[in-house]
Amino acid sequence: MKRGEVRSDIAWADPTRVVIHGLDLCTEIVGKVDFGDMAFLQIFARLPASESERRIFNAMMVILVEHGITPSSLATRMTYCGAPEAVQAAVAAGLLGLGSVFVGSLDNAAQMLQEAIPDKAAPGDIPAIARDLVASYRQKKQIIPGIGHPFHKPVDPRTGALFQVARDTGYFGPYAELMTAIGAEAERVTGRGLPVNVTGAMAAVASQMDIPWKVCRGLAVAARAIGLVGHILEEMRNPMADELYLRIEHEATAHMIPKP
Amino acid sequence: MKRGEVRSDIAWADPTRVVIHGLDLCTEIVGKVDFGDMAFLQIFARLPASESERRIFNAMMVILVEHGITPSSLATRMTYCGAPEAVQAAVAAGLLGLGSVFVGSLDNAAQMLQEAIPDKAAPGDIPAIARDLVASYRQKKQIIPGIGHPFHKPVDPRTGALFQVARDTGYFGPYAELMTAIGAEAERVTGRGLPVNVTGAMAAVASQMDIPWKVCRGLAVAARAIGLVGHILEEMRNPMADELYLRIEHEATAHMIPKP
Amino acid sequence: MKRGEVRSDIAWADPTRVVIHGLDLCTEIVGKVDFGDMAFLQIFARLPASESERRIFNAMMVILVEHGITPSSLATRMTYCGAPEAVQAAVAAGLLGLGSVFVGSLDNAAQMLQEAIPDKAAPGDIPAIARDLVASYRQKKQIIPGIGHPFHKPVDPRTGALFQVARDTGYFGPYAELMTAIGAEAERVTGRGLPVNVTGAMAAVASQMDIPWKVCRGLAVAARAIGLVGHILEEMRNPMADELYLRIEHEATAHMIPKP
Amino acid sequence: MKRGEVRSDIAWADPTRVVIHGLDLCTEIVGKVDFGDMAFLQIFARLPASESERRIFNAMMVILVEHGITPSSLATRMTYCGAPEAVQAAVAAGLLGLGSVFVGSLDNAAQMLQEAIPDKAAPGDIPAIARDLVASYRQKKQIIPGIGHPFHKPVDPRTGALFQVARDTGYFGPYAELMTAIGAEAERVTGRGLPVNVTGAMAAVASQMDIPWKVCRGLAVAARAIGLVGHILEEMRNPMADELYLRIEHEATAHMIPKP
Repeated sequence: MKRGEVRSDIAWADPTRVVIHGLDLCTEIVGKVDFGDMAFLQIFARLPASESERRIFNAMMVILVEHGITPSSLATRMTYCGAPEAVQAAVAAGLLGLGSVFVGSLDNAAQMLQEAIPDKAAPGDIPAIARDLVASYRQKKQIIPGIGHPFHKPVDPRTGALFQVARDTGYFGPYAELMTAIGAEAERVTGRGLPVNVTGAMAAVASQMDIPWKVCRGLAVAARAIGLVGHILEEMRNPMADELYLRIEHEATAHMIPKP
Repeated sequence: MKRGEVRSDIAWADPTRVVIHGLDLCTEIVGKVDFGDMAFLQIFARLPASESERRIFNAMMVILVEHGITPSSLATRMTYCGAPEAVQAAVAAGLLGLGSVFVGSLDNAAQMLQEAIPDKAAPGDIPAIARDLVASYRQKKQIIPGIGHPFHKPVDPRTGALFQVARDTGYFGPYAELMTAIGAEAERVTGRGLPVNVTGAMAAVASQMDIPWKVCRGLAVAARAIGLVGHILEEMRNPMADELYLRIEHEATAHMIPKP
Repeated sequence: MKRGEVRSDIAWADPTRVVIHGLDLCTEIVGKVDFGDMAFLQIFARLPASESERRIFNAMMVILVEHGITPSSLATRMTYCGAPEAVQAAVAAGLLGLGSVFVGSLDNAAQMLQEAIPDKAAPGDIPAIARDLVASYRQKKQIIPGIGHPFHKPVDPRTGALFQVARDTGYFGPYAELMTAIGAEAERVTGRGLPVNVTGAMAAVASQMDIPWKVCRGLAVAARAIGLVGHILEEMRNPMADELYLRIEHEATAHMIPKP
Repeated sequence: MKRGEVRSDIAWADPTRVVIHGLDLCTEIVGKVDFGDMAFLQIFARLPASESERRIFNAMMVILVEHGITPSSLATRMTYCGAPEAVQAAVAAGLLGLGSVFVGSLDNAAQMLQEAIPDKAAPGDIPAIARDLVASYRQKKQIIPGIGHPFHKPVDPRTGALFQVARDTGYFGPYAELMTAIGAEAERVTGRGLPVNVTGAMAAVASQMDIPWKVCRGLAVAARAIGLVGHILEEMRNPMADELYLRIEHEATAHMIPKP
């Protein structure tokens, strides 16, 4: 792009048409392209090229939608109870905490994999790469992303499910092999159970799909937005936010209230 | 729910399972349920019961994803340029403006339709309802939601596309008839072209699917989150935010700068 | 402003100066104007004209800063625990719920007062206005904003504190009289204790200061941002978010977990 | 805190009192404590101990309030134009971009200073520390935070203004000396003009006040919230968002529109 140029290649419209990534919304998308393919179109600027590509992308996206009662869904519910007229704000509030602690490990794992194997057609000596990575993280005293889980143990059941779809569709490649080798190497040197977790599995699949690691967090955030709408709907029907904040306020400040 | 109860019926997990709306994520969702059905599951607590239901839901959702360069996508791009490490914040910023001006007309239209026809099995005299509604809005000097469009004229092409899918799938029912009758009546009494716009069409379809009007904004917000990820991806590769803010700053404040 | 013009009158800069509302930041603001006056400057485009004006403005602002453990501060804490690197997102999440339920009554009360007395120099018959307003709200079955409090009863102690400053500074005028008369009239017709609450008192003071009602929520939001930073600081040192979400998750989903 | 404890020490209330950091809101704060001192109270859990402490804190805070037309204020204006009823969302949107690019350098500079001088009573050999820091950043090819400015050159006028207040109040100490020495050393080794900028000056002052570097971004965010309310007020009276987005949409997508 030339300096000073302001240009977008995503969509244009005239009074009779809306065109998104080259497809006419009215004649080529509505009723023909489903929501998963539409999400794919936004990321890749093209529709999936095969049923396999469609299937692995959808499998990854559905894992990200709903994670139950989390700090994220509680932020949404707290916000909804103060501003029920601004549903967009309640969704946004729940997305804002999808940072380094909860979703950041997905970025980190994908970055680790993509930097270790810049070209998936020439992955190199995967066991050696895994050994070097594990040694390097241990030397820097950093947590290796994508392995181990505090709750889902001894194994994260989602990893097996996603990797099976990856095998079925041809997306179990060098990144999944490296991620698996990293888990095994980490188990070997630490003596602890550190199998690939769902984050590591998603990072491997996203990398095999050529999704840049910086975009992974965006996909997680967009999928979670749908999950948060489910929590808003439940909060409308069956609220918990008021009960919770009054309880917490009482418990957290009781030590300061003067005794009569 | 009993007073003081804190309860969610969406999802639960144990170390070996994650269950969402009664479906096992690993054995019944990943690789089997696509992203559109997953969104449906979050709203209805069940999967689509038919291919028709799936198709109309997906048709509605894809329309909401991408609206090009809008205040919303610009807020996302401006936020990304200041906090590129916090992609979740950039998505959230773009969602925050999906309020009364841009997405609120969807809520308003759905509310109007759902209050006018509380029971779609007994819609009543639709032309009479339309006459009363138009007269009532005109008397209150309020804008009738769901009809007319400043840019897509004489007709909004998205309405025809969505209503065609609605007809094909059996979701062109009393709400679509009422919305169409409202447009016709408004045209009759004002003498202006006021056909059903995309917002009116979506409101009619959502109502026919029994989606409560208060949830409509949530669906729009969640779908747009995906669109905004596309804008972040483009801003990563081909940024416009820096160029824009410097230009705007210059133009907006030039009148205050002392002449040399 | 001419159509198509893009103009801001707030601030400009050249390499050697920054000028905000006509004041040179380096020579006329830093070290000379305090934070309260700076907030005043942003709203009124001038510094306070008198010590009285300064004092009443500061009195109103400090009430808005800290409200303890609320849905708002909990949303901030939940967001901080997921994205501790993005403090701006944690503050923003806490602001997002300052909507119709918690802060909206301030807007509503100020709007009610400002529409009832468009010109404070000619307030008219205040008792009659109060009677008409109370009758009108009761007829519409709407809650009258600014009176009564579920927790601070029989009287809200903040009202007396703020109204005393208003009396001391000459800002107890027609709006405060009207707000007080509304409370008395509502008590008379309902037989319940409905004295002016802090929201009503702030609305009366803001109106007397000629602050447009639409801006009142903005002031509340900005003041609360400071309070939320205090909650983030405490969450850094003494976190509660993790403990809370795990507890809530357990309680809310226990009914779904299969018994062994 | 014991594991499992949920405790806050900020505020408590009973029906007749609200107590914040040990001060009674109604009898000790309203009308007595100004907005700057209230912000100080939220950060330090005490009021300023001296006029000097008050003055340097206020001087730092006022610098952060208003930065004109920036990506942040544009995100606020774009959000306001879509959701004018949700002013809290417009403020939040503007805060969300206060991340690594614009405000992060304040955190970074404060972290650099506080880690280099853990105990300001025993600062060590400041010129040597500066030499080591500059060498270390250059070796890592990282930008040294707090020095140089693309627009305010050859010197940032705000640095002199803030440092003068720091000298007047006794807060020009080891951190300001180190920041100045870093700028001088960087100029020496690069041959370029790299004096301390406003960010570096604020980081030095905040460090001298014992404000933890992680809190610095929070202060910046809270102060900017006030500035953004000023932009919302101007956007209410004199909007630019609609004009801007239509212009930008036209320019950015013109290359895709078919020629007739």
